[in-house]
Amino acid sequence: MTRLKKFGVAVLGFGTVGAGVVETLQKNGDLLAERLGVRLVLRGVADLDLTTDRGVTVDPELLTTDAAALIERDDVDVVVELIGGTGVARQFTLQALKAGKPVVTANKKLLAEYGEELHRVAEEHQTEIHFEAAVGGGIPIIKSLREGLCGNRIQSMYGILNGTCNYILTRMEDENLPFDEVLDAAQKAGYAEAEPSLDIDGLDTAHKAAVLASLAYGCTVPLEKVQVAGIRGLSAVDIAYAADMGYRIKLLAILQSGDHGVEVSVQPTLLHHSHQLAAVSGVYNAVLVEGDIVGTTLYYGRGAGREATASAVVGDLADTALNLQAGGRRRDLSLVKEKAPVVFRDPGDIVSRHYLRVSMRNASGMMARLATVLGDHEIGIDSIMQKEAPLDAAYVPVIIVTGPASERAMADALATIAGIDGLIDQAPVMYRIEDFN
Amino acid sequence: MTRLKKFGVAVLGFGTVGAGVVETLQKNGDLLAERLGVRLVLRGVADLDLTTDRGVTVDPELLTTDAAALIERDDVDVVVELIGGTGVARQFTLQALKAGKPVVTANKKLLAEYGEELHRVAEEHQTEIHFEAAVGGGIPIIKSLREGLCGNRIQSMYGILNGTCNYILTRMEDENLPFDEVLDAAQKAGYAEAEPSLDIDGLDTAHKAAVLASLAYGCTVPLEKVQVAGIRGLSAVDIAYAADMGYRIKLLAILQSGDHGVEVSVQPTLLHHSHQLAAVSGVYNAVLVEGDIVGTTLYYGRGAGREATASAVVGDLADTALNLQAGGRRRDLSLVKEKAPVVFRDPGDIVSRHYLRVSMRNASGMMARLATVLGDHEIGIDSIMQKEAPLDAAYVPVIIVTGPASERAMADALATIAGIDGLIDQAPVMYRIEDFN
Repeated sequence: MTRLKKFGVAVLGFGTVGAGVVETLQKNGDLLAERLGVRLVLRGVADLDLTTDRGVTVDPELLTTDAAALIERDDVDVVVELIGGTGVARQFTLQALKAGKPVVTANKKLLAEYGEELHRVAEEHQTEIHFEAAVGGGIPIIKSLREGLCGNRIQSMYGILNGTCNYILTRMEDENLPFDEVLDAAQKAGYAEAEPSLDIDGLDTAHKAAVLASLAYGCTVPLEKVQVAGIRGLSAVDIAYAADMGYRIKLLAILQSGDHGVEVSVQPTLLHHSHQLAAVSGVYNAVLVEGDIVGTTLYYGRGAGREATASAVVGDLADTALNLQAGGRRRDLSLVKEKAPVVFRDPGDIVSRHYLRVSMRNASGMMARLATVLGDHEIGIDSIMQKEAPLDAAYVPVIIVTGPASERAMADALATIAGIDGLIDQAPVMYRIEDFN
Repeated sequence: MTRLKKFGVAVLGFGTVGAGVVETLQKNGDLLAERLGVRLVLRGVADLDLTTDRGVTVDPELLTTDAAALIERDDVDVVVELIGGTGVARQFTLQALKAGKPVVTANKKLLAEYGEELHRVAEEHQTEIHFEAAVGGGIPIIKSLREGLCGNRIQSMYGILNGTCNYILTRMEDENLPFDEVLDAAQKAGYAEAEPSLDIDGLDTAHKAAVLASLAYGCTVPLEKVQVAGIRGLSAVDIAYAADMGYRIKLLAILQSGDHGVEVSVQPTLLHHSHQLAAVSGVYNAVLVEGDIVGTTLYYGRGAGREATASAVVGDLADTALNLQAGGRRRDLSLVKEKAPVVFRDPGDIVSRHYLRVSMRNASGMMARLATVLGDHEIGIDSIMQKEAPLDAAYVPVIIVTGPASERAMADALATIAGIDGLIDQAPVMYRIEDFN
């Protein structure tokens, strides 16, 4: 066997994913060398905590607490940033890029908040930043979008991008359990963080949606342009009512590009149970991509975890190694240059069908008043469900599936309903229904 | 705007996909130039028939009947082979590779039968052959396998790879129609060829399975090592019985790698209706990939057609252009060198559950004899379904779902059953059940 060229890898952050990357290089290093014609060699692992057992054996000489020094070593060709957050992660990423070394990262928050800066610095120093692991875990969605589908104008994307939320929603539906109980179980099983807000309030999904949007639309998407609602406090009764009508509720990232601008949003959304995305359960992720040439494509896999994320990082390392071997950058990995500023659609203009649960006074004429308000706002009714309630119940739940209506019309109608004395006794619950036109 | 480097494209074959590629370059050429920093310029389209309307407007000066001369032109950097078959398609592909020009092809038959030769010639002339469009239409499955998942040992793949067959099976199930009627309708709708055997007898799927297997296992897979059964004559009653028991029948390519060697097979297979692949309907394709690091991933999209296939071809053109711009080949696109010859598993050793429909004599003691034979061959019974039949029926259908059993044990048992005088009046129908362990 001929001597293979070696390609030095520095891993920053020896947590779950860092250990997974080290383990993958150990386990499949020979296979990779055979496939790539280049050998990926681990030069060092930097972390402040070098004592915790990571479930993987590493030569102690490879461990260091000095990430900055590791980055600068001559035999380090690429830096893997797995620290997370936007503090030292950003600092070390910039240091590596400024040293002309490519960076592979799984850090969606860093990309969503500082992507423009990172891409600019990479460009200035003629190097690259790869981030397959930042969205969809092991699913090669970034590569598919940027390379495989590069001949397409991306019209829309729909993503289930947070495994924790999908696990919670799946268990709530399957076992008819309340949100708090499932969150508690998920935390105990290690599927949810002790501080779960990044996941359940939709921010993690928003970070990932912003990364996908930047690739689809060729623009930087400021996080404040992403409409975000999470699943905290989602009621089991809404999951059950939705199921009765043939729908599942998923935390869905929606990216749509149309004549009136671009939409990037994250919210609990009803999907018809027969749709491919409705079948994505547990900790799995999936992204549906609609391109103007290819039509509908879908990508599915584990959205997080030690191994799946490591698979994506190693895929990026392979690309980086081959690019360096070929003399440098190959594909301009920065965002597509903005021709004209992207226009974000006014959220109030977004039109969809809606699921509406109203706690309505149990008295004659009430349903007519409700229907009249919707009609006055030109909101059609596709179906109504009112289950029998005790005769003496003061208020009863009414489930309405509306026809297509703008967010603005819905908000106006709900305000009118709230203003009618005694018609409802609590704020209505409203979710979007996605029909994938 | 700076002058972009131009990259000359020759298209051989002006059929459905050829026209789609030309149209995509016209429609999204500016977008591609922006994304790639290279402009793809159509230099010529070669076909013997230049008069048929292709639904796309091309400068007549670009049309030629002389493919060989087009390939040699100095301003042609890449050759797109969309002729099909293994005659002139092979000849022109070899000519281009020998001229050191990369080839992009959608020709699975050529790859399955001559892949080794093509890769060797490409290697000798330091150029590349790309074939994303050969499997799964617009789905970037080749790129995902070879690049995104390159850190993984591929343990198994399951593919619905032929849109015509899946369309037929979907309509048979949805509308409870016989095979011949749906095939006829598919031919009239343009979803099936006038001569449909390549599709319905499973050969097209086998070609694609061989291409996938060569990537997964790093070996050439001779077509004679692929076990092939198609859907011709599949009975509507088996689709209905399978549905009764919660299964759908799909023409499935199965690739599995285990201790006892490698399996590559194509056959009608029962999948539980809740499985993601069972939800793939109509002309759509999907591939499920299990890697040792990433776990289960799935890729879904249109498996054929003008636009979807063009999307894959253009993705390959982009890669080729960027590689050439970077000075030549980047990734060794040839197959992984064989370390040791791959061992193909003896088909008789393959173990799975089976669906069995037996036309059994309607007399007492018959079921016991049937069950005894299965038991004698150590074939367990997971379920039996015998519907009520007219009292005077001489033979009645019995549906058996077996426990896990080898193909050999099943064949032996069926031979024994056939040898028992009067027990059955026609050959049993048997299909594999895939449980995706």
